[in-house]
This record gives sequence, C-alpha cells and structure tokens, in this order.
Amino acid sequence: MRKPRLMTPGPAPVPEDVLLELARPVIHHRSAEAKQVITEVAAGLKEVLQTQNDVMILTASGTGAMEAAVVNTVPPGGKAIILNAGHFAARWGDICKAYGISAVMVDTEWGQPVDPARVAEALKQHPDAVAVFGTLSETSTGTGHPVEAIGKVVAATPALFVVDGISGVGAMECRADAWGIDVLCVGSQKALMLPPGLAFVSVSPKAWAKIDAFDAHTFYFSLKAARKKMKEFDTPFTPAHTLILALRAALRRIKDEGMENIWLRHKRMSEACQAGVQALGLELFSAQPAEGLTAFRVPDGFKDTDIRNRLVDKFGITTVGGQGKLKGQIIRIGHMGYTDEIDVVAGLAALEMVLSDLGFEIEPGCAVTAAQQVLIGQKAVSPR
Amino acid sequence: MRKPRLMTPGPAPVPEDVLLELARPVIHHRSAEAKQVITEVAAGLKEVLQTQNDVMILTASGTGAMEAAVVNTVPPGGKAIILNAGHFAARWGDICKAYGISAVMVDTEWGQPVDPARVAEALKQHPDAVAVFGTLSETSTGTGHPVEAIGKVVAATPALFVVDGISGVGAMECRADAWGIDVLCVGSQKALMLPPGLAFVSVSPKAWAKIDAFDAHTFYFSLKAARKKMKEFDTPFTPAHTLILALRAALRRIKDEGMENIWLRHKRMSEACQAGVQALGLELFSAQPAEGLTAFRVPDGFKDTDIRNRLVDKFGITTVGGQGKLKGQIIRIGHMGYTDEIDVVAGLAALEMVLSDLGFEIEPGCAVTAAQQVLIGQKAVSPR
Repeated sequence: MRKPRLMTPGPAPVPEDVLLELARPVIHHRSAEAKQVITEVAAGLKEVLQTQNDVMILTASGTGAMEAAVVNTVPPGGKAIILNAGHFAARWGDICKAYGISAVMVDTEWGQPVDPARVAEALKQHPDAVAVFGTLSETSTGTGHPVEAIGKVVAATPALFVVDGISGVGAMECRADAWGIDVLCVGSQKALMLPPGLAFVSVSPKAWAKIDAFDAHTFYFSLKAARKKMKEFDTPFTPAHTLILALRAALRRIKDEGMENIWLRHKRMSEACQAGVQALGLELFSAQPAEGLTAFRVPDGFKDTDIRNRLVDKFGITTVGGQGKLKGQIIRIGHMGYTDEIDVVAGLAALEMVLSDLGFEIEPGCAVTAAQQVLIGQKAVSPR
Repeated sequence: MRKPRLMTPGPAPVPEDVLLELARPVIHHRSAEAKQVITEVAAGLKEVLQTQNDVMILTASGTGAMEAAVVNTVPPGGKAIILNAGHFAARWGDICKAYGISAVMVDTEWGQPVDPARVAEALKQHPDAVAVFGTLSETSTGTGHPVEAIGKVVAATPALFVVDGISGVGAMECRADAWGIDVLCVGSQKALMLPPGLAFVSVSPKAWAKIDAFDAHTFYFSLKAARKKMKEFDTPFTPAHTLILALRAALRRIKDEGMENIWLRHKRMSEACQAGVQALGLELFSAQPAEGLTAFRVPDGFKDTDIRNRLVDKFGITTVGGQGKLKGQIIRIGHMGYTDEIDVVAGLAALEMVLSDLGFEIEPGCAVTAAQQVLIGQKAVSPR
C-alpha cells in the first residue's frame, strides 16, 4: 500500500467534499444557478483577500493573473519596478519584457526578504514607474516578504503596488486594503484548497484609474471586460465553472474556520516544520520563511532526489526540489490549504526515517519532538 | 423530481466516469504520473484533431486559444482576413483590434455558410494578409462552414488558415492536416466531453515558420513556450492538470468509439433533430446546419424565454437562445459530446409538449416520429 500525501507548495491537498463538487453533473455557465454560485464566491473571495475592491475570476493559472496585472496597468513603453528575489518574482520581469515594458530590477539575494528601504530608493530614482511588482510568498525560496511595510512605501507615491499572492494568500496574513495592495493575484491550487485552473485578481480604485487610462493589448485578460461582467456575477468568456462551484465549497470551509484562524494554523505549521527541520541539524534556506512552505538546504553529501524519491516511494509524500539556480540545493515541503499540524508532524517523521535510511545521522524522534514542542507552546521559534 | 438534462452547445454533458476522475486526490503536476497522462493525452488529441502537428494544451477557455492563435501568428500592424459570419467569428476581429492587427472583415449573413470564392477574392485583394481566420461550427448561428473547401483556397497562398473549431471539432468531420488547417483551436467543454477550463491548439510547420519569425507580445499564451515544454510532455505554467486527467478518460472513450463513428453519430443526431424541428412546422435558422447543435427560429407570437424556461421547469432541459443580434429570435439545442440519438428524441418530445402547453398547435408525436424515421433510415434529410 502506498498512501499519497501531497506536501508540495502547490498544488496543495483538496478536501474530499470539494473534490466531490467537481464530480457533479455539469450545469450551464450562464444559468441562474451559475450566477448564484459566482455571487456567493465573489463575497468569499473578498474575505480571503481582505478587500472591498472588485475581485475578478480568471480561467487560467496564476501566471495568467500576473500577466493580467502587468498588461492592464502598465502601457507599452511604460516603466515597472520589479522586486526580484526569486524565480517567480523574476517572472514579473519576463512578462514586462514580452510586452515592451521597461523593467527596473531591484535584486535581492534569493532567500532574503526584500528591504522596504530599497523599494523607497528605487521609487525615488524612478518617479515615472507606473507600478511596483512584488511577491507575498516567494515559492521558489520559501521566503515571506514584508508586504505590509512595502505597501506603506508605495502608497505614498503615484505608483501602484501589485503583489503576487499566488502561494501566499490564505497561507499567511495578507490584507489587500489595509496594506495598500492595488492589485493582488491569487491562484486556486494553493491555500484556497482547489485544483489549478482558476486565478483571482483584486483591483483598487487607484489601479482602475491607470487601467481605464489606456487600451491594453490583451483580450482574454482584459480586466475592464472582467469588471463589466463581474458586476452581473458573470464572466466575459466561458469560465471553468465547475471549479467555481468547488471554490464555493472551499470558501464555505474558509468562512467556517475564519481567516485569522487559518493564518494562525499556517503559522503554527510553519513554525513546527522549521523547528523539526532544524532539530535534524538541517539548515533553513530562507532568512524569513513564508508560512505555506518550508525550504531547507540539502545536507552535504546527499542528493535531493534521493531524499525526495524515497519520501515518495516509502511514504507517498511528494515534496519539491529547487528551481532555477537552486536546483539540487534545497528541498521544499508544502504545508498549506487542506493540511493540518499533524500532517506536518507525520511529514517530519517520514523525513527522519528517510534520512536515517540514507545514512544521515539522526536521533530518532528529534524532529517530531521539536515540532510537537512548538505546537504545545513549550518552545519559542528560532529561525536562522 | 427534476432531472437535469444539459442540451446546450457547450458546455455539453460529461460522462460519469470522466467526472469521477475529477474527484480523485490531486497529484503533483510535475510528477512522472502527470507527465505520463500528458503523453497519452497528446496522442489522443492528435487523433481528435486529425493531425500530426504539435498540439498544445492551454489552461484557458476557447477564447484563450483564439487569442494565442492571433497574437502568435500575426505581428502588430500585420493584416488578417476574418471570415465574419457570426458572434464568435466576429471575436477574431475583436482580438485583432486589441493587438493592433488590421482586420479585413469578409462579412457573410448570419446563418449562411462562408463562400470559398469570397475567401479567394479577399486573398487576391489582400496578398499581404498573414492569416485567414475562420470557424468550423459557428455556435451562435448553428452553421457549419465549408472548412475543407476554404482550406484548399488558403493553402494555395502564403497565408495561414486558422480555424476556430471550439464547438465543431469532435462534433463534425474536421481533418486538420488533410484540409490544410494551419492552426486549429478546440475547447474542452464541447464534443470532448469535459468541463470548461482547457483549450487545445494545433500548429502546422507553415504556421511555426511565421510564429518563429517574431517575438509576440504575450507570455501566458506563447505558443513557442508551450511547444518547448510539450516536447517533454509538460506545460510552461501550472496546468489545470486534474482536467487533463479527466481528458485522458474522455479521450479513451473517443478512441474506443472511433472518430469516424463519432462524426456519424453527430450527423445522425443533427439530421434527426432538424427533421423533428421541421415536422413541428418550425424553421431552421441555418442554411447549412452544424452537426453539434440545431438552431431554429422562435415561432411568431411566442417568446423564446417562455419556451426555454418551460423546458427547464418541466423537464430539466437547458437550451440556449440567440446571441447579439439574434437575441430572442432563435433557440439553439445542443447535441454534442456525451449525447446520443435517444437524448435527441427525448428532447424533441419535451419540445412538443412544451409548445403544446404554450398553445402552439402541434400534432403530438410528430417531431419524435420524424426524428425516428431519420434514425431508422426511412426518410432522407431535407434541410431548408
């Protein structure tokens, strides 16, 4: 028997009742019933994103939402500031390049959080920048960035603050309105507990003013078209409406648990996972870990694939390795969405056993114990 | 009891076993298992599209595939010929406009098939046109266009032939390679028997030559990026991979039935539906009906919504009305994908009863009988 356990930073596990929604007979996407689903979902998404702004539903993966955020806000030839601190942050720059947008890259070492003072400096040097593109949780490095502090800096300027919250929103505190996030992008397959296929974008009045000022070179990702239809709880094109039906079920779960409780659960999972990994003598990769995943360095003399493959083979646990320049150097364990504290403890137990199998010297139970100590509040967290 | 029956020209009914695939626990999209699914699906899609060309999988609705087809093939400022014969054909023009592409509209009256001679004429007048954008089955009018004949015309020129096969492919004969279709767009929620959320695009070597000649202003819909990943049975961004898993199940069903048999089944359903509608004294809207849906004019003195709402209320049958300038004037009955001849007969029986309820004079059983006569081969089909 091999029981599958998805511990990747997206896709994340989907609750059984949400999966079953997907098996229901398909209805028509322009029916009163479908509109009723979007009506309920629209309210639930505002709660998740902590916003009173419009939230648009796109049938695309998170990258589609990022593209919508770029092409609708910055006209061709315009300037954007990219807070480049990882694989996915760099994607903002790639999208800008594809559209002839001048991208000013503010580079931060992978694994380090972006320094808000450097954002202020970049905005001073580039007062003509239309927008600052940042990241809440950089999935490639497992780093949580100080979005609230950066938001304060950007809000004081005419520039928009656009945030990739794809793997972060729902897994760590994020308040679009209170933190001055003008455009927030979210994916379905992370803390929102759905399969991939939907993305969500919130847009502030400050952002709409920029968006309304020009005709973007896009059709499918037109936020103006999406806003118009969303007012009638509809979409401009046939949406992945069976996923929207499942989203309703996921959002009902989220409402029942409450956003603040969800953030706390992820914080506990994150702290427990960090403590467990460190108790094994492993080094956390990020100086400021995000709360939906934990990244640690592959110990010297070991291969990431040996560890990850054995986790799958023995315990059905899927994790991911490093991306881009981190390939082979780190392992990332996801703990977001339909995942609880005991899943993390079980994952750490498996990691202990796999490392031991591979000849890594460990004290059996040390990671589990450290995690449990965090969970029962006996031990303060000490990130690197 | 109200038993739902989806008789819309997309979304179309999804087989129960395909729906159940969607309820399976989510796996990781970069796993060996996920790659294996794409490998099998890639072969199945080639069979459905009747092509040896690359077929790319996009996480988007059909319109996303149309946008990919436009933006990757025609550079900004380039010229395109649009075979404008309905609501969805007109969308080709809207997409061109969004990207600064000059669209030459070859208008055909809604409900009439495009005349290949007019395509030849347009190509002669506009030898600089990069591509001709047409439609296999125009869902808004229920018209099937002579794609094979148009393909011959376009193939003799340097222009590409790009076809919206979103609601047509799988429901009526379409042979991408044999008919000279350079780019063929297909949606998941029609004859492919899936929910919406995926789209497919095949690209010929002639089209790749144009695509490779410039950098398109797109990122998410980059066909070059999709081709590169598809060679490894992967996708550039997180795909809606649970839908791809369900696609595998749908494609296995398609393989079992065989493409030619599927085209024949749709032809029989289409002819039976047309015969039934005409036996009621109703007028078919299209001079050349497509095979996945039947459009008929709302009889004088009746409201389309009265008929359609009563079909839903009494028999759970969802149909659609007219779009754009046909709003209120026609009713469209879908019969594609997981729909068989008896579903059509049952739909006609319901239509008879609903029309009778509303005071429309009918001979009970006449539509059903006419359809059955077609199905048992006693009656030749006589379109308008």
